Amino acid sequence: MLNENERLDDLGINNLKVIQNKKWFCFGIDSVLLSDFAKDMKSDSKVIDLGTGSGVIPIILTAKTKAKSFLGVEVQDCVCDMACRSVKMNNLENKIEILNSNVLDLKKGGFKNFFDVVITNPPYKKFNTGLTNNNIEKEVARHEVKASLEDFIEISSFVLKNLGEFYMVHRPDRLVDIMVLLRKYNIEPKKIKFVYPNKNKKANIVLIKGIKNAKPFLEFEKNLIVYNEDGSYTEDIIDIYNNK
Amino acid sequence: MLNENERLDDLGINNLKVIQNKKWFCFGIDSVLLSDFAKDMKSDSKVIDLGTGSGVIPIILTAKTKAKSFLGVEVQDCVCDMACRSVKMNNLENKIEILNSNVLDLKKGGFKNFFDVVITNPPYKKFNTGLTNNNIEKEVARHEVKASLEDFIEISSFVLKNLGEFYMVHRPDRLVDIMVLLRKYNIEPKKIKFVYPNKNKKANIVLIKGIKNAKPFLEFEKNLIVYNEDGSYTEDIIDIYNNK
Repeated sequence: MLNENERLDDLGINNLKVIQNKKWFCFGIDSVLLSDFAKDMKSDSKVIDLGTGSGVIPIILTAKTKAKSFLGVEVQDCVCDMACRSVKMNNLENKIEILNSNVLDLKKGGFKNFFDVVITNPPYKKFNTGLTNNNIEKEVARHEVKASLEDFIEISSFVLKNLGEFYMVHRPDRLVDIMVLLRKYNIEPKKIKFVYPNKNKKANIVLIKGIKNAKPFLEFEKNLIVYNEDGSYTEDIIDIYNNK
Repeated sequence: MLNENERLDDLGINNLKVIQNKKWFCFGIDSVLLSDFAKDMKSDSKVIDLGTGSGVIPIILTAKTKAKSFLGVEVQDCVCDMACRSVKMNNLENKIEILNSNVLDLKKGGFKNFFDVVITNPPYKKFNTGLTNNNIEKEVARHEVKASLEDFIEISSFVLKNLGEFYMVHRPDRLVDIMVLLRKYNIEPKKIKFVYPNKNKKANIVLIKGIKNAKPFLEFEKNLIVYNEDGSYTEDIIDIYNNK
């Protein structure tokens, strides 16, 4: 089932695996942390993952939640094909569907107020900023080439039911944009968790939970630190990887 | 110089003192941390403190900065009178002026684009929420009775020069409101610092720096922890109180 340049990664939970292409964007700790952050979603939720890439988030969430179904949306057809093969390999075709579409096109579809949960690890960087990557697959995954942060949030609000849950991972330097856009599209930020590479560095990842049409009240979860001073993973991270 | 129920507190810097009324709102660590957070403001700045209370922030800042002048605005005349006596006691009449006014009235004045720096420790709680205090002086200091968060931010933008600096202390649960309002009034949030009571608790204070009409880019400063596990102040806090 593996094509050229592909490798098979064991997710360490329920024997789940995911196919990745070494030349494209490979999922990192962000997706793992986001999946864990979202694991308390309601049972029987219908979940959509905007920009699913390899499909790693829905695949992990089948083990971490009792959600009913997952729709992973991915704009790049070659990446979609790879995600579909990962779904099949794990025998999850009855749980996870992969849709080859630009998130922008969801506004035309019949998904208005349809999902209980949106989860998304969108491109972090603005279009035409910073280093661009040397191939188009990485570029689309990392930069806002096909859809902007505002598009992701607008579509999220469009597809969410009233009081539906929204989970996103992003960079702390974009937090103002994120909060302003969430308010604009009626997703109230309710919970934030910062992730630090180690206890002496600044946070480099932020996890955000919002609820559509909820009242304002923001809570900060305990910070998460990834590495101990000796470079080993902290207990908190080991627990997440062990699905505790 | 002290009236009934008043006491004299030593600020521990440059022999500065401040008068407080034991029955009213007494300044806390928030004002001390905010003053320290703002201490790198440009030399010769004209500074306005919105809701100055006892005048503690401008009094501390005369020691921590090379600002040119301070205008402390306070709506309650009895509190104003006390602040004026503190200014005199410290021989700071040439540096600090106290204005008895509701911040809302500043829009009528001639202060448009006038100040280099706004600093503010506004009331934290929405009007008609939570426990109300048993006297009007505390009520005005703690709840948005006379002016709302939006008023404080709108006026701040109005009185600030282009690229002027804005410093505020508030509660983390209001951070979405703060960011959305700052954007609305063209003060871009540039720096955030969270303050934790101790390393096992959640942040209960947030310090925010914004710049009027600046480009978006948000930075998080290293977190500040107030108490060690044995209940003593951390070194970071001792350094701040010792003006290091």
